[in-house]
Amino acid sequence: MKRNLFITFEGPEGAGKTTVIQKIAERLAQENIDVLPTREPGGIEIAEKIRAVILDPAHTAMDERTEALLYAAARSQHYFEKVRPALDAGKMVICDRFIDSSLAYQGYARGIGVDEVLAINEFAIGKKLPDVTILFDLAPEVGLARIYAHGNREVNRLDVESLAFHEKVREGYLQLVERYPTRIKVVNADQNVEQVIEDVWSLLCDTMQ
Amino acid sequence: MKRNLFITFEGPEGAGKTTVIQKIAERLAQENIDVLPTREPGGIEIAEKIRAVILDPAHTAMDERTEALLYAAARSQHYFEKVRPALDAGKMVICDRFIDSSLAYQGYARGIGVDEVLAINEFAIGKKLPDVTILFDLAPEVGLARIYAHGNREVNRLDVESLAFHEKVREGYLQLVERYPTRIKVVNADQNVEQVIEDVWSLLCDTMQ
Repeated sequence: MKRNLFITFEGPEGAGKTTVIQKIAERLAQENIDVLPTREPGGIEIAEKIRAVILDPAHTAMDERTEALLYAAARSQHYFEKVRPALDAGKMVICDRFIDSSLAYQGYARGIGVDEVLAINEFAIGKKLPDVTILFDLAPEVGLARIYAHGNREVNRLDVESLAFHEKVREGYLQLVERYPTRIKVVNADQNVEQVIEDVWSLLCDTMQ
Repeated sequence: MKRNLFITFEGPEGAGKTTVIQKIAERLAQENIDVLPTREPGGIEIAEKIRAVILDPAHTAMDERTEALLYAAARSQHYFEKVRPALDAGKMVICDRFIDSSLAYQGYARGIGVDEVLAINEFAIGKKLPDVTILFDLAPEVGLARIYAHGNREVNRLDVESLAFHEKVREGYLQLVERYPTRIKVVNADQNVEQVIEDVWSLLCDTMQ
């Protein structure tokens, strides 16, 4: 069984990624699989400082290319300081959002260009893409309704983008599925969370075979 | 006469760039040319904050790819917030170090790869290279001897690299001259400063024709 896999989770806010990843990590641990759940910047000091520059509300004049380069820089440090050493030590790493978020949000929805954003991200991580990426697919109005209804976290900068923007993000993700048909697996996130967990678990079991 | 040119100055520390750029800026102003001298991060708040992350001495574990992406990010913000608007307003911009520093130091001397570092920097500045780049060519031992002898500034992180590293930087710069023979003009920096100023001035006059 292949266990030192690098698995990433993608999809819009409100799709239930955080809850599902937590349950999946518990289940992997129960199966005696040594798993490291993470998300950028992941407690890596340099990556945290870069993220603070991106998110500083005073930086309203940040150029979108600067922002894309900063995300790639934080990704590089998190990857080489946390993800890569864990994989090299034989662990499975499951990461909440990774390169495909930049491709869908910045490359496609913001219009910088998917190939352009891919180039700087391949530089960032030495062209090593995740082994498997699980995309939580969901109509944006459903995800946004969940965020506003649950009130379980603060509404952030991306949530308040227009519905048209979130629809472009979804389109961007679905184009990535066409580009990487073997790497990216789609899960229907418009089901109850128990079913989503079962679907993800089933995909992971296939991957580990 | 072409006046809204983007001109960059490159070369090792100790080559006299700072002094020469100051004199050249004065001379351009005397000729009633509206000139903006700058160097990254150039007082641009976002670029200054990015540079602070790069130079933080606590960050000894910074991955070299992270560092290259951060330099590109600071460059992007400085370019779009300061250089580009000045050019669009018809000014001439003269910039102390730009993309070729990253190519020579990080791409070539550090071994990340010139093409790879070029790709992220082309992303950063929208593929718009400088109109003219003036390379101050100097044997590294001469530049280093000047820095230590003059004592007019603190010795920095790059100064204390091995002589072999500085020789690689010079090699990197000279390979860039082969790659960009019309853009990059070489000036012999192993002359007295008045002669270097004359050589640079003569190149600039040719460029503005």
